[in-house]
Amino acid sequence: MREVAIIGVGQTKVGEHWETSLRHLALQASQAAVADAGAKRVDALYVGNMLSGELTGQEHLGALVADFAGLRGVEAIKIEAASAAGAAALRMGYIAVASGLLDTVVVIGVEKMTDAATSETTAALAMAADADYEASQGLSLIAINALLMRRYMHEYGYSRQDFAPFPVNAHRNAANNPYAIFRFPVKAERFGTATPICDPISLLDSAPICDGAAAVVLAPADAVRGLSAAPVRIRASAVGTDTVALHDRTDPLVLDGAVLSARRAYQQAGVGPDSIDLFELHDEFGILAALSLEAAGFADNGQGVRLALDGEIGAGGRIPISTMGGLKARGHPAGATGVYQVVEVVQQLRGLAGANQVGGARIGMAQSIGGSGATVITHILERAE
Amino acid sequence: MREVAIIGVGQTKVGEHWETSLRHLALQASQAAVADAGAKRVDALYVGNMLSGELTGQEHLGALVADFAGLRGVEAIKIEAASAAGAAALRMGYIAVASGLLDTVVVIGVEKMTDAATSETTAALAMAADADYEASQGLSLIAINALLMRRYMHEYGYSRQDFAPFPVNAHRNAANNPYAIFRFPVKAERFGTATPICDPISLLDSAPICDGAAAVVLAPADAVRGLSAAPVRIRASAVGTDTVALHDRTDPLVLDGAVLSARRAYQQAGVGPDSIDLFELHDEFGILAALSLEAAGFADNGQGVRLALDGEIGAGGRIPISTMGGLKARGHPAGATGVYQVVEVVQQLRGLAGANQVGGARIGMAQSIGGSGATVITHILERAE
Repeated sequence: MREVAIIGVGQTKVGEHWETSLRHLALQASQAAVADAGAKRVDALYVGNMLSGELTGQEHLGALVADFAGLRGVEAIKIEAASAAGAAALRMGYIAVASGLLDTVVVIGVEKMTDAATSETTAALAMAADADYEASQGLSLIAINALLMRRYMHEYGYSRQDFAPFPVNAHRNAANNPYAIFRFPVKAERFGTATPICDPISLLDSAPICDGAAAVVLAPADAVRGLSAAPVRIRASAVGTDTVALHDRTDPLVLDGAVLSARRAYQQAGVGPDSIDLFELHDEFGILAALSLEAAGFADNGQGVRLALDGEIGAGGRIPISTMGGLKARGHPAGATGVYQVVEVVQQLRGLAGANQVGGARIGMAQSIGGSGATVITHILERAE
Repeated sequence: MREVAIIGVGQTKVGEHWETSLRHLALQASQAAVADAGAKRVDALYVGNMLSGELTGQEHLGALVADFAGLRGVEAIKIEAASAAGAAALRMGYIAVASGLLDTVVVIGVEKMTDAATSETTAALAMAADADYEASQGLSLIAINALLMRRYMHEYGYSRQDFAPFPVNAHRNAANNPYAIFRFPVKAERFGTATPICDPISLLDSAPICDGAAAVVLAPADAVRGLSAAPVRIRASAVGTDTVALHDRTDPLVLDGAVLSARRAYQQAGVGPDSIDLFELHDEFGILAALSLEAAGFADNGQGVRLALDGEIGAGGRIPISTMGGLKARGHPAGATGVYQVVEVVQQLRGLAGANQVGGARIGMAQSIGGSGATVITHILERAE
């Protein structure tokens, strides 16, 4: 098994790209990553995407994107794991390069969500939930998370306002990220009066529907040692799963899939939470950010929100999260998000995160969640010395 | 890189399973394969599927199937490459075991197509075509293949009737396969008067819309050497791609993706067409069977139909195809088909194909096509001595 490095990254601005097609978004991210890597040759292309069939009538993205990106003929496959699709594609690319079978793999996450009506997009996103037992009863993904948040507030005695630090931190960081959809700060005071979407989740506590694509280029770490551009090693790549339906979970307030995923990743990398300098987590809603912090060992159960209230999730805190805006403010183009997170960790480890730079960042973690926690994929990256 | 063996196979009967859900189909195939393998532990589950989002409102099949199959917590991801999804999932499972990262991987192909109206299914299948340039113009997948067939007939001087040997061979073999949807022979004389579906493709020349699931269990070849049940080695696993839209192809009558895919597979295995004892190809329509035979080197361009007319595709012929009924008569549950093909090759190599046994079969090839040839995935299997 070979060590794997990320030798190039690329991303499009997250936004409402009504005049840019799915394949164009993928092309832009891919071209940027391949140029960044200086790659002369590509052996395979793995595309992470969740909703292209439902929202744009297009399956078969592997071959489609490969051809459009100038890679006609190469191995190309689409990977899906609901909103963790991008991270799942990276997992597959990682394995392929680690195996020795392929030398240069481009991983793209792409999603185009704004061409459909919001109701259609909401229905499509609910396909991450259990179609037979949840979605068919009218439970959308945001409704499931609202139930989780309500239970968490009840169980641990928090108010809705206590979740404000998550979007405040995310928006503050997005303001400095040219690729983010929301480049403006928000005030905690506005949180209490924000438009409700699915009580207790409000507009200020929910990631937006949006479009975007991000890409990374993978190569064997040995082959790139000594090159001038700083490569980043993938120290761990781990998937954990759980029941799709919330009612089947042992404890709905513990993301077992995230516990498994993080534990496996720490074991592979031979590190613990204390060694992680920044954590790009799946802050689609504040409640998911809190539960992720707990599952990954940064807070005890019920203390994820407390960690945020104590100011420990910003730059200089115990564990900086959403350092480029997170899902909340960089944006969450579903199947692309897992790759955006990794691109941002690479930016941090390269020391190129600008005003949002986490000082001395050496090890970063990215974690992507499918649905309400049924698939959780964790990658730990380290700056090559 | 480790050698990989298939140590267990399982399948459900292909049919119209109105009373069996998607997850139940997957469960049945998975249980059968795991029991056949005698596997005590599973490290990951890769699910090949094309249409679950569009037709049953369910994405996120990896985690869903893992939980339902009693594998909650394990790595689980869905793979899609249009109708080659099952083969793509096998490709990913193969790489994962070859890499040394995972020891036991279950690969499931599953599709449920009959719960929707035929018009919905036809529209969903067209998502394998180019949404912007083909499907949006009304070109369904069968219409694309009808254009190909018409051009082939014009170019090489064949009649519609000349394609009869493909379904005749497929149905003859399906009659002996308890897992096939159409267990009856058809006569070549009926071919000329069969109900047209999309001229020149008729009912007798088109694979059916149906449901089914198939599964294989993969393990390192070294670990299973000497076990009593005959393992089958994966000697090659290769993906080739081409443009999704037909109009972009160099020559529409040459499946460049299949040429690449077969060439790469032969190279990996160190064999040529002459060493292949049977070929499970993607005979969704007779024209695709003919073009596949040509692309894989069993016939010159324009001679695929001639090969069939000469009786060379049946048992005892130069290259037996569709030995258990093929897509035409075993059935074609889209994303499951690539795994069915491999299960059948394993049956042949184990000498367990009953009345359809290809005498002395040692090396078999399975090739799955996504759409009209944009993704082509080839696996070469060999009986372990």
